[in-house]
Amino acid sequence: MSDHHVYKKVEIVGSSRTSIEDAINNAITECSKSINNVEWFEVQETRGHVTNGQVGHYQVVLKVGFRIEGS
Amino acid sequence: MSDHHVYKKVEIVGSSRTSIEDAINNAITECSKSINNVEWFEVQETRGHVTNGQVGHYQVVLKVGFRIEGS
Amino acid sequence: MSDHHVYKKVEIVGSSRTSIEDAINNAITECSKSINNVEWFEVQETRGHVTNGQVGHYQVVLKVGFRIEGS
Amino acid sequence: MSDHHVYKKVEIVGSSRTSIEDAINNAITECSKSINNVEWFEVQETRGHVTNGQVGHYQVVLKVGFRIEGS
Amino acid sequence: MSDHHVYKKVEIVGSSRTSIEDAINNAITECSKSINNVEWFEVQETRGHVTNGQVGHYQVVLKVGFRIEGS
Amino acid sequence: MSDHHVYKKVEIVGSSRTSIEDAINNAITECSKSINNVEWFEVQETRGHVTNGQVGHYQVVLKVGFRIEGS
Amino acid sequence: MSDHHVYKKVEIVGSSRTSIEDAINNAITECSKSINNVEWFEVQETRGHVTNGQVGHYQVVLKVGFRIEGS
Amino acid sequence: MSDHHVYKKVEIVGSSRTSIEDAINNAITECSKSINNVEWFEVQETRGHVTNGQVGHYQVVLKVGFRIEGS
Amino acid sequence: MSDHHVYKKVEIVGSSRTSIEDAINNAITECSKSINNVEWFEVQETRGHVTNGQVGHYQVVLKVGFRIEGS
Amino acid sequence: MSDHHVYKKVEIVGSSRTSIEDAINNAITECSKSINNVEWFEVQETRGHVTNGQVGHYQVVLKVGFRIEGS
Amino acid sequence: MSDHHVYKKVEIVGSSRTSIEDAINNAITECSKSINNVEWFEVQETRGHVTNGQVGHYQVVLKVGFRIEGS
Amino acid sequence: MSDHHVYKKVEIVGSSRTSIEDAINNAITECSKSINNVEWFEVQETRGHVTNGQVGHYQVVLKVGFRIEGS
Repeated sequence: MSDHHVYKKVEIVGSSRTSIEDAINNAITECSKSINNVEWFEVQETRGHVTNGQVGHYQVVLKVGFRIEGS
Repeated sequence: MSDHHVYKKVEIVGSSRTSIEDAINNAITECSKSINNVEWFEVQETRGHVTNGQVGHYQVVLKVGFRIEGS
Repeated sequence: MSDHHVYKKVEIVGSSRTSIEDAINNAITECSKSINNVEWFEVQETRGHVTNGQVGHYQVVLKVGFRIEGS
Repeated sequence: MSDHHVYKKVEIVGSSRTSIEDAINNAITECSKSINNVEWFEVQETRGHVTNGQVGHYQVVLKVGFRIEGS
Repeated sequence: MSDHHVYKKVEIVGSSRTSIEDAINNAITECSKSINNVEWFEVQETRGHVTNGQVGHYQVVLKVGFRIEGS
Repeated sequence: MSDHHVYKKVEIVGSSRTSIEDAINNAITECSKSINNVEWFEVQETRGHVTNGQVGHYQVVLKVGFRIEGS
Repeated sequence: MSDHHVYKKVEIVGSSRTSIEDAINNAITECSKSINNVEWFEVQETRGHVTNGQVGHYQVVLKVGFRIEGS
Repeated sequence: MSDHHVYKKVEIVGSSRTSIEDAINNAITECSKSINNVEWFEVQETRGHVTNGQVGHYQVVLKVGFRIEGS
Repeated sequence: MSDHHVYKKVEIVGSSRTSIEDAINNAITECSKSINNVEWFEVQETRGHVTNGQVGHYQVVLKVGFRIEGS
Repeated sequence: MSDHHVYKKVEIVGSSRTSIEDAINNAITECSKSINNVEWFEVQETRGHVTNGQVGHYQVVLKVGFRIEGS
Repeated sequence: MSDHHVYKKVEIVGSSRTSIEDAINNAITECSKSINNVEWFEVQETRGHVTNGQVGHYQVVLKVGFRIEGS
Repeated sequence: MSDHHVYKKVEIVGSSRTSIEDAINNAITECSKSINNVEWFEVQETRGHVTNGQVGHYQVVLKVGFRIEGS
């Protein structure tokens, strides 16, 4: 086994009608369908749509980090 | 009707005793009293006051974007 | 009494299993155990750990500002 | 007459189907309908929509500077 | 009375032949002619013109924050 | 159908001998060969090669955003 | 004696009713009461309060660097 | 053959117990197992773990650029 | 011949009444009158003057890189 | 035992005549004399002195993170 | 005569025992000894040395812009 | 003799097949052939070429500071 790992970071945008945390969770859940070993996330931007004078969706741009398998 | 739009962005600070989302909503609600066509927001900074060793207010600095009427 | 104050800012990372606000509060509470006169905070970064395809902990990096006693 | 001026900067987003320059011009033209003394602009961001695998609109975020009348 | 306030930030450029502080004051004075409740400023950029090998004007770009009336 | 979407952003560099817009279009066209649902782009950097004292190629670094299918 | 030194940087906010330089000096003076070997400062932000349409206080955020004793 | 190329950049984190250069090389080597035409890298961040008061691993976050085949 | 080169970057502002690309070319052409081996450029800022409610000049701030002769 | 931790980050400058890694290690070693639980570092800046046309010292500015005891 | 100009920006550090403005002026004066047509400056950083617990020198890093002769 | 100095900063890119430190040294050595009084450097970017799946050259972009003679 190697004594060092290599990680990759991908940039994902999650959205939610209810909260920033929910938007993050939606992104992480979607990521984890196709990627193993997701280990951390970093919020890059928080933004959203406004509909009828109220927040319609929160949109959170994340970097998501995962270990490359076999590394 | 034009095939392109022009938007303006203004910088607003919302505050709330309870949550970051609530501070965002307070800013959007206030904005929408005087501005039509608000379409999106971008969080610039999140900060707050501390009172007696606890968060007193969350303060969220937003850019709020709206379409200029007639454009 | 002086007509001006001097403040210091320290950088703290709070964490929470439940929300960003809770991570901020955990950091402020810990700070206030050893520092008097904490007056404000500024969020620097929001990030977190992922465990089993879900957010494990939110981690919020804060600058926390307090007035230097006697200044 | 004063020996100094005061300027204001507003943030505008112009769009165009054809080019970045055209998006800038659309924003400047719209601004000049309601603001006198526009003197300069600074590009903040260049972005756009994609429709059917091609650029649909260029969107250019500008700061636009103008002299405050009477200053 | 509301338990939270909403603030707006505008971007202003003050200038002065004599000092950076004077340029800031010129901007604040001009702002206060048309805006109530100005509460704080943040320097964004400091720059200036040079005439005959000497500073002609200091120009200071400020964000100026004020409370929205009624909020 | 879900009431929220998840998006991914990838970083692409397009180049062109003729213009910045053409470099952007080359990148978008190449992307759209292998990715569905491309919705927007954000210019990160504009640069280029110089050959014989003239611009040889414009190179535009873009973030390209697309909706993840099924999200 | 070591052939290398280790330094620490702390973040301080000085304020003054009169000038930016005075705010810097107030911060440095306060720092030097409790820290030896202060060697340099770096201005991070310049901001201030407005009272009655005039600058009330300049506030200057500084990083202050000092050599760790014995290093 | 096209007179222009399209490149993609991916974000990778290499680690090493011995040096920053070794962490970069570990990331490049891992990348090259699955990607052809890797042409350049850009260091984004340098960081690491500390174990028992000493550097345990250097971690280097890289953008790695490669030409898209056929472009 | 050395197995490594040393490059220098200078900061130039090109301007044009017609387009961003033309402003870049004007800067590169002027540079190449006095500098050999110009190899690349990086756009730092795009801005311009407004005259009579229209773009008067585009101004593009570039870093221009060239190999130092003999290196 | 708490299910969350609080961390603090301090900013340290290490120096070395020989390498960047050695400057990092000197900073970490000095830190660990007075701080327990140092867990990670983040390089902020790399710079140095030049003496007689050669690098005299590398200076590396680090943020160093440690867990607050009892948290 | 050309209908466009080309400018160059150089980076200069001025210092002064007395004020930030004086440090700027010292840099501009020195520049103007060897460069014609200096037209503007932009402050990049403000920093300084501390001697005996007081500001020893203000150091101001400037970009200084001048028109290239004949352009 | 003046009680203040003026410095200039130039931007240089050093390269090396072997290490980041060697790339820095190559840049400093080249600079010192034509510039006296080089006093410090600041790393701006670290990047490099990849050849056959391995680092071909490290490239380090530096700001190099020197005192202007006679100042």
